[in-house]
Formats: sequence, structure tokens, C-alpha cells
Amino acid sequence: MTAIAAISSTTDAELESFLAAAHRAAGPLAALRPAERAALLDHLADALDSAADQLIPVAERETNLPEARLRGELKRTTFQLRLFGEVLRDGAYLDARIDHADADWPMGAPRPDLRRILVPLGPVVVFAASNFPFAFSVAGGDTASALAAGSPVLLKAHSGHPVLSRMTGEVVTAALSAAGAPEGAFALVTGTAAGSAALRDARVKAGAFTGSIPGGRALFDIAYSRPEPIPFFGELGSNNPAFVTRAAAAERCTQIAEGFLASVTLGAGQFCTKPGMLFVPAGSGVVEALRNATVPPAAALLNERIQSGYTAVLSALRTNPRVEVLIQGEAPLATPPSPTVLLTTAADVLAEPQTLQTECFGPAAVVVTYDDESQLPELAQTFEGQLTATIQGTESCNVGDLVEVLASKAGRVVWNQWPTGVSVTYAQHHGGPYPATTSVASTSVGTAAIDRFLRPVAYQGFPQHLLPDALREDNPLGLARLVDGRRIG
Amino acid sequence: MTAIAAISSTTDAELESFLAAAHRAAGPLAALRPAERAALLDHLADALDSAADQLIPVAERETNLPEARLRGELKRTTFQLRLFGEVLRDGAYLDARIDHADADWPMGAPRPDLRRILVPLGPVVVFAASNFPFAFSVAGGDTASALAAGSPVLLKAHSGHPVLSRMTGEVVTAALSAAGAPEGAFALVTGTAAGSAALRDARVKAGAFTGSIPGGRALFDIAYSRPEPIPFFGELGSNNPAFVTRAAAAERCTQIAEGFLASVTLGAGQFCTKPGMLFVPAGSGVVEALRNATVPPAAALLNERIQSGYTAVLSALRTNPRVEVLIQGEAPLATPPSPTVLLTTAADVLAEPQTLQTECFGPAAVVVTYDDESQLPELAQTFEGQLTATIQGTESCNVGDLVEVLASKAGRVVWNQWPTGVSVTYAQHHGGPYPATTSVASTSVGTAAIDRFLRPVAYQGFPQHLLPDALREDNPLGLARLVDGRRIG
Repeated sequence: MTAIAAISSTTDAELESFLAAAHRAAGPLAALRPAERAALLDHLADALDSAADQLIPVAERETNLPEARLRGELKRTTFQLRLFGEVLRDGAYLDARIDHADADWPMGAPRPDLRRILVPLGPVVVFAASNFPFAFSVAGGDTASALAAGSPVLLKAHSGHPVLSRMTGEVVTAALSAAGAPEGAFALVTGTAAGSAALRDARVKAGAFTGSIPGGRALFDIAYSRPEPIPFFGELGSNNPAFVTRAAAAERCTQIAEGFLASVTLGAGQFCTKPGMLFVPAGSGVVEALRNATVPPAAALLNERIQSGYTAVLSALRTNPRVEVLIQGEAPLATPPSPTVLLTTAADVLAEPQTLQTECFGPAAVVVTYDDESQLPELAQTFEGQLTATIQGTESCNVGDLVEVLASKAGRVVWNQWPTGVSVTYAQHHGGPYPATTSVASTSVGTAAIDRFLRPVAYQGFPQHLLPDALREDNPLGLARLVDGRRIG
Repeated sequence: MTAIAAISSTTDAELESFLAAAHRAAGPLAALRPAERAALLDHLADALDSAADQLIPVAERETNLPEARLRGELKRTTFQLRLFGEVLRDGAYLDARIDHADADWPMGAPRPDLRRILVPLGPVVVFAASNFPFAFSVAGGDTASALAAGSPVLLKAHSGHPVLSRMTGEVVTAALSAAGAPEGAFALVTGTAAGSAALRDARVKAGAFTGSIPGGRALFDIAYSRPEPIPFFGELGSNNPAFVTRAAAAERCTQIAEGFLASVTLGAGQFCTKPGMLFVPAGSGVVEALRNATVPPAAALLNERIQSGYTAVLSALRTNPRVEVLIQGEAPLATPPSPTVLLTTAADVLAEPQTLQTECFGPAAVVVTYDDESQLPELAQTFEGQLTATIQGTESCNVGDLVEVLASKAGRVVWNQWPTGVSVTYAQHHGGPYPATTSVASTSVGTAAIDRFLRPVAYQGFPQHLLPDALREDNPLGLARLVDGRRIG
């Protein structure tokens, strides 16, 4: 592992060698059996766990995040790698389908023998995020799901944690090599120019990104304006509104205020799922409960760029005549900033939704008072696409219409919990309509994330010995498959 | 049903009313139970079958296609609608997933109750094709799969069969209305400007297209440069190369020549899966068998625009010094054109692949002689993304490397059959890397086509009565679901 040193940008010659190697690795990586790729991921997870004591101090120094959070995040990261190993061993992700030849197929023409399976797209460029230096960075969810799919990864490191990126990249490369992965299955790329050059290269077949709306859109535009456009899975920005019904406020107003404040300030508010706006019934006591709450202490943001972005957006919001300060700590615009909660009304949000709903990345949020619960669906309609939307209600609340609107706006709808803390599971969906993501049907968290890096191929009339194992009649991988329209196994 | 009349373009006011109605219909159409939408599709299929005697003569007149072919195509079209009804009743397409809360989830944090399901994207603009006036037109595969998903359809009619489009549109509208579909679930749009205006409208959430590379790319660029980009599923162009091994040529040279010629001239060569290039071993007899074959008679092309495009591309190919005429009928460039097969060599293809592989939409193809079978993978590598690729081989042929290259280039690989005649099945894949399609992971034929118009939503911590039926613990729809990572049902 290298000592801490200046991190230089990837040169053109280095990038060419990475691209050529990734291109060469694509076939051999795709040709591994799913269980063989699972073993690679397990080995990588073990190597990262073993390197924790070297990686964590560097992460602390480069991100200002506390040790406990970073250790938890690394655990989540290695869990995720192992979970994709399980996905591979299960094999259902291949969506293997077999239609036997059928002379009487009611279409009006005989059906040929058709067998379909998902195969990897080919090399992927992954752009790492700053706010999760493990889980959405070098060995994070995009890397894990792309490697699981069988696609080589060119990882564009985030400049916010350069040494950690380099060190993690070395762990990944060494672990994959030791476990027998094809050379070129992973490479670390540094520098903005090298990242976008990789995305433009014809050998690259997809991009994945977590970050800001302008940055993500610029890369999206590159991906879709190439001579051969490629899928680009960008997770961009989200306000993550939360709606409190009158019954819920009456039942647990202090608990709601405290839960909201904790979610807003978790990780110093630097989560893409931080609730940025809370709708509360006027006169219900939630506003007062917030006013009486203990404001969490100031916490350093990830880096100077995040800090200056935060103070710029928050300053604009604070000086908006539609907004007043509800609570704030001693130094809301200082470094580090103490948390801020602003206050406005439903009428103001309806008058100027986009301005007031701007994502403020850091420990700030806006509380909105409304008069009548019947306004909530209309207020929900003012939002662009979201990663999450939350309802604090009671079993007796009449919120069917609100749920329907929120499900049309957001990838995940949360009931009586808070949106931060995205669990890695089979049913998780971390996505949503634009600008939450650039790819409305895909997720970057959970087992379905592997689907992004796969495409179908159908084999018609093939002899058994030339078929992929997953499609052979004797089913050597023991897969569950769709056979003549029925799930077998 | 209207009498044949001049078809006017959709006005701005009409388009606005269609868009507003589609937007209003999206919620109610999505809210129907899958089996209720299946009933709509069945009713629509019945209505189209009942209208066959009115529709077929108009189709014959507008497309120059023979009655038997058109009756077969209509049968395929109504079969397809009913097959999507089966997909809806089965319900597996919803990919319903339930993760119960788990305090000991090994990620390092308790897992909340998470439930995920696919929901419709919202209104879709479908651009009809000219070459399948039923199966890829008004009530074709894109319309069927979008309606099945629960997305309203704005159908941009193809100018090649305007009266048939109008008549079919009336059947669709009347059938959906009679079966109780929400008003606005379907509308017919005419005129290029109205089609692209619809694609630009913020209420439209996806586009689907079958047609030329330039036309499809222009619409693709509109969809992805919108303020809110939307998925665009374009099926554009394909050469569909076929490769004959020496052993296959030795075994059945006449059969291969005849099969190839029949596939090239099926539907007057106006299939997106027509084999445009045939690689044959030099001196193997396939060239001679083609020279001795009976050239099928001339057949009228769909319309003047197709005819002039065909003669332009074919003229350029014929005058290419790398190419000679192998066989042709009496009037290869006349209206109607007799079929043409050109001849060139592997060295010429390697020297000028893009020119010689240009799709020539109509009854023409290029035969390429090669010396050694070991050249085939390299020759296959010269192709851009394809809908199909075909091998004519024998069981003993050593073609593993060729199959691997072709599976990386094409969505469907065919063995000892021909690529025309795309069966509508569970395992079918009609797609492929760009420029075969603009969306490498999606298919426009087969049951998986429904996936294009769906996106996931996750519900976290929800009470049972607010969950969609598909996610309720008591499983009222009787679905197969992924529960805590295991498939149940």
C-alpha cells in the first residue's frame, strides 16, 4: 500500500492502457461462471475488511467523517459485495428463458426453439461520490454490481478522498488479481478529463454516477450524444419531502420533530436522501417542538467545495423573503456549520416551488406549514422526480391520494420512518424520476442494481453444446428458469 | 368506420387535447388490476379480428403486401395482444418483492420492511413502422406492451398507410372505450411535427420507434435532450449477417442458397431482420448454387419512398468496384424491382466494412467469399450492433469463437435457420447494440417488451391497507413474489 503522496491525474497513455485492458478483460470476465465471479467478490470483501485499519484513518482525515460511521460504512460495503455473490450463486438475475420449438404455437407460425439469457454489457465507467467514501466510491455499489454482472470497471476516483481512493483501488486490484480475475477487470482513473475521455471511448459500454445535477447531466449528455450512445445511470439530486398529517402531529409531535432533525443532520446532512422539506399542519405543535429541540452540534462537512456550496445555497434560501429562520445553532454559515431549519408556508411553496425545493446539501431543511390535509396532494405535485418521499401519519389517516402522487414522483415512499439510511436488500429501490436519476427504471442500491449492466441475447435453434450453460437442457447450473412460459425450479 | 378520405395532420389544439387526456388517463389506467387490463387487451384483439375484412383490403391497397401475408400479420397482432393479457394475469412481470423487517440484517443496521413493485411510466408516444402495417403499427407490439404495462399510448401513425392507420385507430379507440378503459388511454396522432411535439411534451414519459437510423436517431436526440430526458426505445437498422461454414456448405449447399434467397426476398426484403450479407467458403459451391437458383419474381415495395431509397442504396452498392452482380432478375432497379444478390470477398469487406454492410432495405443482399473459417470471428468483429446474426453450420463445426463474437454484436443468434419471421414468445429478444436499437437492454418483440414501460417503486414501513394489492401480506392477486430473497409461489 502506498504512503500518502500527491495523486496525479491519469495520463492519456495510462488511460489507453486501462481501456485496452478492460476491453480485453470483458470476454474472460463474462465467461466466468456466476459462482466464480461470486468468489471474486467474496475475496474482495475479505481483503477490504482486512485493510480496514489502514483505510479508516485515511478516510477520517480526507472526509471529516467520524470513525464509527466510516467503520459502519465499510461493513455495509463488504456486505454488499457478498450479497451480490449470493445473487450470482442464486442465478435468477440471469432471467434464463427457454421456449421449446412448438409447431402449434397459436401465433400462426411454428415457434422455433428460443433461449434467452442476460449477458454483461462490457466495460463500465463508474464515477465515485464524495459523501460515501466506501459505499458509493471505489468498491461501492456501482463497482460491486458491475463486476457481479461481469462488466470490467474503470473507476473515476472522487477528488474529495484521493489517497483513500488510491489505497482502496490497490486493495481491489490486488484482491481481484489474487483471486484469479482477468487482468484489466478493474482500474482506477483520476482527473476529470480522464473520466470524461473514458466515457467517450467506444470500448466503454455504460456509465454510472452519483453526484450533483449539473455534473451528472453533463456526463449524461456525453453518454447519449456519442456516435454509439450508451446507458448512463446517474443518481443526481433530491429534496426528499416529508409530509406530516394532523393526526400524526397530534399523536407524536415531539418524536416527529426529533426524528426529522436527526435525519436532517445525520452525516452532517450530506446524504442524497436527507429530508429537505417537512410539511406540517399549522398550529399542530411540530413547529414549536422543533423550536424547543436541542440543535445538534456543528459538524465539519466533507471538504471545502461542499462547504462553500452549502453556504451559497443556504444563504440564498435564508434571504428569500418567503422564508424565516426557525432554528439554527451558533454559526449556521461558519466552517463547520451548525444546523439550520427554515420556515415557510404552503402558499409560498405553491408560489415558488423550484426555488424553495432546491437541494441544500448539508445540515439544513425547510419546514412548511399547511392548513388543510386536502392540500397535500397538490403540494406533492409541485415536486420534480425524487429518490424518496415520506409520510408521517396514523393508520386512520385518509392519505391514499397523497401516496399515489408520491409514488408517481419518487422511487421510494416511506411511512413513519425517515428516508436516510438506505438498506441494501432485495426489495430496495434507490432511484426515481429525473432529476433524482437519469434512468428512471434502475436502482443503484439493492440486488436489482446488477440489472443495469446486463443485456439479453437470444439463441435460436442452437445445438446443446454451443449454448451457454444457463440455457442447456440439462441445466448444469441448477437455475430457476422460465420454460415455455412457466417458472421451473 | 370512416370511408377512405384525405388524412389531415393533427392540429396543435387536437394534440393538446390528446396529451391532456393521456395525462388524465395515466392514473386510472395504472390503477386497474392486471387482470382488468388483460380484459381490455382481449377485447381489443377480438375487435381487430372482427374488423379483418374491412382492414385487410385497405392494407393491401396502401402497402402493396399480399392478402395472405396481411391476414397472417393481423393474426400475429391479435395473438400478441392476448399473450400480453396472459402476462398480466400471470403477474410475474410486476417483479413484486417483499423484504420483511429484520433486526439482525448482516449489513450492520436493521432492515426495515421494504416492498417493491413495478408501476407504469406514464404516457408513451409510439412511432409506427411502415413495413408491418399491423404488427408494428397502430395496434402493434409497442402499443400492446405499453397498454399492458398501464401506460396510455399516443400513436404516431406512419404516413405509408394513413387510411389503415385511421381505421385501426378507430377500432382501438372504440374497443377500449367499450371495454371500460379510461378515456385518453389511446389516441392517434398524424404528421411528423405533431409526433415530435408529443415527444417533447413534459407529460410524455417514454418513446418507442421502429424505422430508419437517421429518423430514429433524430427522435432519440429529442428524447434525451429534453429538460427531463425520457427513455426512447428505437429499433433502427441491421444488416443481419449470416455465416456458412465449410462443412455446412459441403452438406447442403443448395438448401442454404435457397433458404437464404427465400429469407432475403420474404416480404420483398422489407424486414428489419433480412439477412443482408452471407459469408460463404470460396469454392464451396454456394455461389454456384445461388447462380443456378431461380430468382424470385419482382414484388412491389411498400411505397415510393421505400422504392427510391432502395434503388439509391442498391445503385451505390452495384457500382462499388469491390462488388459484382451475382444474380439479378430482369429489372433490378425498376418499379417493382426484381431481387439482386451481389458478390464480393472477405478482403474487400475488411477493407471497406461500413460501406458494404449498409442496410439495403428491399430484396437485395451481398455474398462474401472467404478462404478460411478462422477468418470468421475477425469478419464478424467488423459489424456494428445487429438485431440478428446467423450461422449455418454442422454439429462438428468448431465455431465457439464465432458464436461468442456474434453474441456480443447481436441480440439474437440463429443456428441453421434464417432470421426473418420473428416469433412472439417468452424467450424472444428483438433488440441489440446500437444502431440495431437505441436501448441495448430492451426488446420490442416478446413478453419482455412490457418491461420497457415500467419503473420500480419501493414502499418502506407501510401499513397493509395503504399498500398496492401486489405487495400485501395476504397476496390477494396470488402472485409469485420474491420474499426475503426467496421466490414464493
